[in-house]
Amino acid sequence: MANTTKIVFIGAGSMSFGLSMLRDVFSSRDLAGSTLVLVDIDDAKLDRMTRLARLLNDKSGAGIAIESTTRRREALAGARFVVNSVVIDRNRLWKLDFEVPKKHGIRQTLGENGGPGGLFFTLRTLPLIFDIARDVEEICPDALFINLSNPESRIILALGKYSKVRAVGLCEGIFGGQQYVAHIMDLPSDQVDVWGAGLNHFQWLLHIKHRETGGDLYPLLREKERTHDPSFAPLSRRMFRAFGYWVTCSDDHMGEYVPYGWEAGERGYDFESDERARTDFWTAVDGVLSGVTPIPQWWLAASGERGGMLVTAIVHNRKQFIESGVVYNQGAIPNLPGDLAVEVPIVADAAGVHPVSLGPLPEPIAKLLSVQAGVQQLAVEAAVHASRELALEALLIDPVVNSTTAAAKVLDELWDVNGRYIRPCI
Amino acid sequence: MANTTKIVFIGAGSMSFGLSMLRDVFSSRDLAGSTLVLVDIDDAKLDRMTRLARLLNDKSGAGIAIESTTRRREALAGARFVVNSVVIDRNRLWKLDFEVPKKHGIRQTLGENGGPGGLFFTLRTLPLIFDIARDVEEICPDALFINLSNPESRIILALGKYSKVRAVGLCEGIFGGQQYVAHIMDLPSDQVDVWGAGLNHFQWLLHIKHRETGGDLYPLLREKERTHDPSFAPLSRRMFRAFGYWVTCSDDHMGEYVPYGWEAGERGYDFESDERARTDFWTAVDGVLSGVTPIPQWWLAASGERGGMLVTAIVHNRKQFIESGVVYNQGAIPNLPGDLAVEVPIVADAAGVHPVSLGPLPEPIAKLLSVQAGVQQLAVEAAVHASRELALEALLIDPVVNSTTAAAKVLDELWDVNGRYIRPCI
Amino acid sequence: MANTTKIVFIGAGSMSFGLSMLRDVFSSRDLAGSTLVLVDIDDAKLDRMTRLARLLNDKSGAGIAIESTTRRREALAGARFVVNSVVIDRNRLWKLDFEVPKKHGIRQTLGENGGPGGLFFTLRTLPLIFDIARDVEEICPDALFINLSNPESRIILALGKYSKVRAVGLCEGIFGGQQYVAHIMDLPSDQVDVWGAGLNHFQWLLHIKHRETGGDLYPLLREKERTHDPSFAPLSRRMFRAFGYWVTCSDDHMGEYVPYGWEAGERGYDFESDERARTDFWTAVDGVLSGVTPIPQWWLAASGERGGMLVTAIVHNRKQFIESGVVYNQGAIPNLPGDLAVEVPIVADAAGVHPVSLGPLPEPIAKLLSVQAGVQQLAVEAAVHASRELALEALLIDPVVNSTTAAAKVLDELWDVNGRYIRPCI
Amino acid sequence: MANTTKIVFIGAGSMSFGLSMLRDVFSSRDLAGSTLVLVDIDDAKLDRMTRLARLLNDKSGAGIAIESTTRRREALAGARFVVNSVVIDRNRLWKLDFEVPKKHGIRQTLGENGGPGGLFFTLRTLPLIFDIARDVEEICPDALFINLSNPESRIILALGKYSKVRAVGLCEGIFGGQQYVAHIMDLPSDQVDVWGAGLNHFQWLLHIKHRETGGDLYPLLREKERTHDPSFAPLSRRMFRAFGYWVTCSDDHMGEYVPYGWEAGERGYDFESDERARTDFWTAVDGVLSGVTPIPQWWLAASGERGGMLVTAIVHNRKQFIESGVVYNQGAIPNLPGDLAVEVPIVADAAGVHPVSLGPLPEPIAKLLSVQAGVQQLAVEAAVHASRELALEALLIDPVVNSTTAAAKVLDELWDVNGRYIRPCI
Repeated sequence: MANTTKIVFIGAGSMSFGLSMLRDVFSSRDLAGSTLVLVDIDDAKLDRMTRLARLLNDKSGAGIAIESTTRRREALAGARFVVNSVVIDRNRLWKLDFEVPKKHGIRQTLGENGGPGGLFFTLRTLPLIFDIARDVEEICPDALFINLSNPESRIILALGKYSKVRAVGLCEGIFGGQQYVAHIMDLPSDQVDVWGAGLNHFQWLLHIKHRETGGDLYPLLREKERTHDPSFAPLSRRMFRAFGYWVTCSDDHMGEYVPYGWEAGERGYDFESDERARTDFWTAVDGVLSGVTPIPQWWLAASGERGGMLVTAIVHNRKQFIESGVVYNQGAIPNLPGDLAVEVPIVADAAGVHPVSLGPLPEPIAKLLSVQAGVQQLAVEAAVHASRELALEALLIDPVVNSTTAAAKVLDELWDVNGRYIRPCI
Repeated sequence: MANTTKIVFIGAGSMSFGLSMLRDVFSSRDLAGSTLVLVDIDDAKLDRMTRLARLLNDKSGAGIAIESTTRRREALAGARFVVNSVVIDRNRLWKLDFEVPKKHGIRQTLGENGGPGGLFFTLRTLPLIFDIARDVEEICPDALFINLSNPESRIILALGKYSKVRAVGLCEGIFGGQQYVAHIMDLPSDQVDVWGAGLNHFQWLLHIKHRETGGDLYPLLREKERTHDPSFAPLSRRMFRAFGYWVTCSDDHMGEYVPYGWEAGERGYDFESDERARTDFWTAVDGVLSGVTPIPQWWLAASGERGGMLVTAIVHNRKQFIESGVVYNQGAIPNLPGDLAVEVPIVADAAGVHPVSLGPLPEPIAKLLSVQAGVQQLAVEAAVHASRELALEALLIDPVVNSTTAAAKVLDELWDVNGRYIRPCI
Repeated sequence: MANTTKIVFIGAGSMSFGLSMLRDVFSSRDLAGSTLVLVDIDDAKLDRMTRLARLLNDKSGAGIAIESTTRRREALAGARFVVNSVVIDRNRLWKLDFEVPKKHGIRQTLGENGGPGGLFFTLRTLPLIFDIARDVEEICPDALFINLSNPESRIILALGKYSKVRAVGLCEGIFGGQQYVAHIMDLPSDQVDVWGAGLNHFQWLLHIKHRETGGDLYPLLREKERTHDPSFAPLSRRMFRAFGYWVTCSDDHMGEYVPYGWEAGERGYDFESDERARTDFWTAVDGVLSGVTPIPQWWLAASGERGGMLVTAIVHNRKQFIESGVVYNQGAIPNLPGDLAVEVPIVADAAGVHPVSLGPLPEPIAKLLSVQAGVQQLAVEAAVHASRELALEALLIDPVVNSTTAAAKVLDELWDVNGRYIRPCI
Repeated sequence: MANTTKIVFIGAGSMSFGLSMLRDVFSSRDLAGSTLVLVDIDDAKLDRMTRLARLLNDKSGAGIAIESTTRRREALAGARFVVNSVVIDRNRLWKLDFEVPKKHGIRQTLGENGGPGGLFFTLRTLPLIFDIARDVEEICPDALFINLSNPESRIILALGKYSKVRAVGLCEGIFGGQQYVAHIMDLPSDQVDVWGAGLNHFQWLLHIKHRETGGDLYPLLREKERTHDPSFAPLSRRMFRAFGYWVTCSDDHMGEYVPYGWEAGERGYDFESDERARTDFWTAVDGVLSGVTPIPQWWLAASGERGGMLVTAIVHNRKQFIESGVVYNQGAIPNLPGDLAVEVPIVADAAGVHPVSLGPLPEPIAKLLSVQAGVQQLAVEAAVHASRELALEALLIDPVVNSTTAAAKVLDELWDVNGRYIRPCI
């Protein structure tokens, strides 16, 4: 088959997602003849990623035409896929998202996708997302918007409710859950098959089966978990014991959504290590580009992140089952609100991305997620309308916020910090 | 008109609600010729209340036949109204509901209708409520069950979902809200008319009007509130400023439902003062019954609690608007779940009790209440099924519960205390 | 009390509703000091109605200031109530609504509020309604829009979904039902109290009680109906026997909504008699105005139509129960869609008009009404968007439409007739 | 892989579905080592089908163990799949389902899955289905119930609502739709890929794509349809022109659900030809079994009916996309009721059968299907409760029923015919 396509990758300079996407796209010949346009506002990063892309393309023989530009609108003409990994001044602002609430006694684990931090991440990010979405609506309205950026749930929810862009979010969180339970059961993770449904970073493994035999692994997990090292994933495991299902993707991500998340630790994200990894990454890229170091073998292998698989499944009309995607709910999880971003398995084919329904969640779990559903919905309303009133209300319905006084102070301080990015989205 | 009826008052020995009910029933001649049966398992209290009832009936000329019995089922034959104010070992158990969670770091304001305390109040009370409900279903299936007992919302929810009994809850909370706002506006409370919708003790005044002119009083309230003594109802007022509407009925009752309720104070209910009031009450009753002291004039006046008004409106087919009743939702507040107890105005007439819809709540308020809706629904499931697993899950979706470790301990200790009362309800 | 108000009556020249409204407004002194502005585009009719209004006002001592104008926007300044009874070229167009479908084999009973006739009535009327609604939104946004015009359900639905105007519809249909059942039971209709819920002209009497005793009259109705003259209301009675409840308001109105409505007769509306009544009415008015004939006594009595009662209840903050109003559903009938116009009892007071919920309809009845709900919703969409495609779809989901070929022809012919009035409403 | 399973095929003597199922099961070696138990109450047919199964198994080398019994409960022990194709006295009763309503002027196209015929098919069939379901619940509760019998939608709806059995229905209707549109476009049907959602026999092709290129074929279909022979599928095509999407599976099946179905013809099912086909089939079987005639080659090829594919996908944990399955809705089509049987694509794997959501249906289509949804729901209630009252109500909400008088007569006559099979199901 000679089906080809055009993929535009916005925020291509992103260390977190950029390389993964490239690895996926270049790890097969399924996209030979297609065009990949890298877009970033940071010339230097864009240049390096473009040179890296060309190198990987050559080495892999993937046969893709590589272009790059800082002008988003030009890139979008004729695009069928828009991959998004933009982020605004990531670590500096995220750090404040975490530290300001902490100063006022609000106990966050990460402050990224939930809690006051998640709110301000939403407030500053959605205006940019809608700038892009409007361009897509105008220039390439049939394109699929594949979102890799955080706050993942809120971006997909906002686009589902307020734009016509067809959007799906991808996250590797479910594979974290798969590895956790495989580890506890002492099984190779590739023998453990999981089916998850819920919210991003708050997804419940409704089935855990042996990949080959199809046998139910929950009995084994329950048995092994009882005696497993208690320091391993303690919060997730207390939730597992209470609610009967394993929750992805990790104590700190999940802990953003519950009033007892602090029990998973309150150190927050390891920004130092993150910065080191960034430096190391770009050093490695430079080494490779300059020919000083060889291409690491794993750069030429698929990342497992499903972005590439999704694109090829659509281009070639494979009815491809993909473990997890963040989609606008509309009944995929019937006992959560329709106007919400949920994470469920998906099928991708020529007709697009289709949620696979695993049925209603167990009621107690649905109720737990409903709390966060309300927070996400209200945070999106606050961002879309650039409303300080709604932002305060979003704080006051968040179970992580344990003080009205603190909420008011956090709002004041973080609005000051983020105010320049906050503007109505529609 | 000579329409008469039969009212059975279960738990008639209750100090809190007993006298009010009697005052209401005797304060008009609308029920002349009707029968009032007092029921209690405490012989002594029943005897005193019966004698008091007879005295008030005589003095008022209400013309009601007074009966009394400890045998509930006998009393129910032919009943058209069953008024319930039963409570199990009230202050001793409630105190534990408050203190045990406190010991483990969970910050409750009252521990009565929300939080861990509210959960255990539900767990021990619903089995008794369903005993009564089954009797009603069998013996007087068309009777209206008027509930005065706490936890009000959970009793009405449980009966709405799991029994055929027609039930309504009455609470004077809305009048508290009316007085608060009248006080701030420096108006006589009888000139202030309020329309509330929400949950019991978490009801929002959607309209505040001048009773005579119909003029909107919210502008005045907003203005006056700004400069009012900051020590007055501080938590309710922060909610008012954030959400734009006044919330009933008081900081401590409302504080049971939110993670920042502790900001309203953590002393809990004043059990000492409550015990003193009880003693004083029974002394006063004895004085009156023995003829030593005259009947206080206010004992002969209506209480304002609406129980009597409700009964007479139904008996005489008045289309009586009553400010507030706790009803099984089913759309009365369309943006809250149908299977929930909500508090809205009601109309009472020969066809029964009808919720009056004030329309959807403002979305942020609906989302705030939805959190508590989930807690109440799950607490009821835990009680109805006598399930410890569901009880733990109910704790873990409650925003007041800030620790999984504490939740587990509270569950252990309070289940021990209440276990003898917990049994499946259906 | 000296509360006064301003009422604007648009389409005041209407014979059907004009006099009733005047009778209601003048039959008490509750509105003394208020202003009534009559508006019509027909100078002559307006003039006569204005003179009649002044005469009735004088005779009754109602004490209202009467104004009149053909300029709607001027009239609306300061209005608190806008009463609407506009209609476009009523009998000529309605006749075509009936006859064109008949010619193609579609069997309507009236062709007014349902069937192809109801669709075209909707298509031509909503643009005018939205013209008025936009004026209200702009000039007197807090006014209550009281609709008397047909198609009643579709106007209230359209305004509820697509405008900010607060609207309620009034119809005397429920009193028809009351009289029918009283007649069958051989009781004076003022001793029969009914509670209805459903759609306009398709409302079900969920309770029938003796007004004084409150006793259930359904057993008597069932018994009497069995042997009652079979020629009386045969279709309604077959529905009563099948569904267990009485349906208002009459065979021909209800028959518009069901595929077997033709069993109620296919003669259609009696336009001749209607024209005669009109002529007689204006003759009588002229006689009265010229002093030749005395004012008929009943012109000075309330009409029973509830328009006046509604206004005074709001002006004086009475919590007035009114038997029936057409409201935007939003949960008032929980097992019908929220975005629908339903007819239920209402309460009127200073806070506005509030639906009274009689709970869910029996499921089979809800399903029967749901069919019509879909038709009404789609007809409104067709009108609001002036969409011929949606109009055809609205025909094809209507159970009265028994041929796709006929549907296409009816669409062609009636679109030609009504096309000049059809334009997007929003 | 050596995953094996046990399949029980109830009603294995069915001509319509029996051979297809055998062909599917034997057409690959994916089920080698598994057991297939044929069950029927007709000894003779069972014997012949069993011998046929053994022969096909031998010829194909499928390696399956074949058993057979007339005792259903024994067969079910250890079953993982229960395939159902039972039918009660098919042609005789179906003929009456068609002719009795016709006699009274009700115009059906088939009287099988809709209209009065569909109602009585439901009334007589569900009791037997629930007998089987109860056995499954007790003996093999984890088995998947694969239904091939009609009335397909009502069986799946009833099981979804009133049993714990996991059930899915299979129907080849969507392939009919695929062939129709391929025919009009003059394309080989295997190059045409379709995605359908709706009700069984009333499913709408939301996407039609070229299988290889993924290109949208709707523009081509619209163009070609305009000039295609007007005698081809005229009713489906009028629906296509009106609603914008192609509806499966054929004029007569779809015509059962709409008041203008008679436009597709009123001859009804061709029972004569059906009887001839049966005779021919058994003659052919006898010929093959006696060795007189060779096995037709197509008996050894997969039938395309997806039953075999479904089983193997689950057994081998393939994430298999299957074009269409009838499932209990629960949000798969979010703008149809949750308690309904809908037909959508499915994914089958070790975790079971999962609906694939194609999102909400276009609103006009959803409204059209909602009418039928109500009919199906009420018919199921009537059958489950063996209620004549509900059966009459189900007739009166069916748009095909154009007379209350006829409805009453049809009910009388067909209840007499079917009464011996009608009994409460739960």
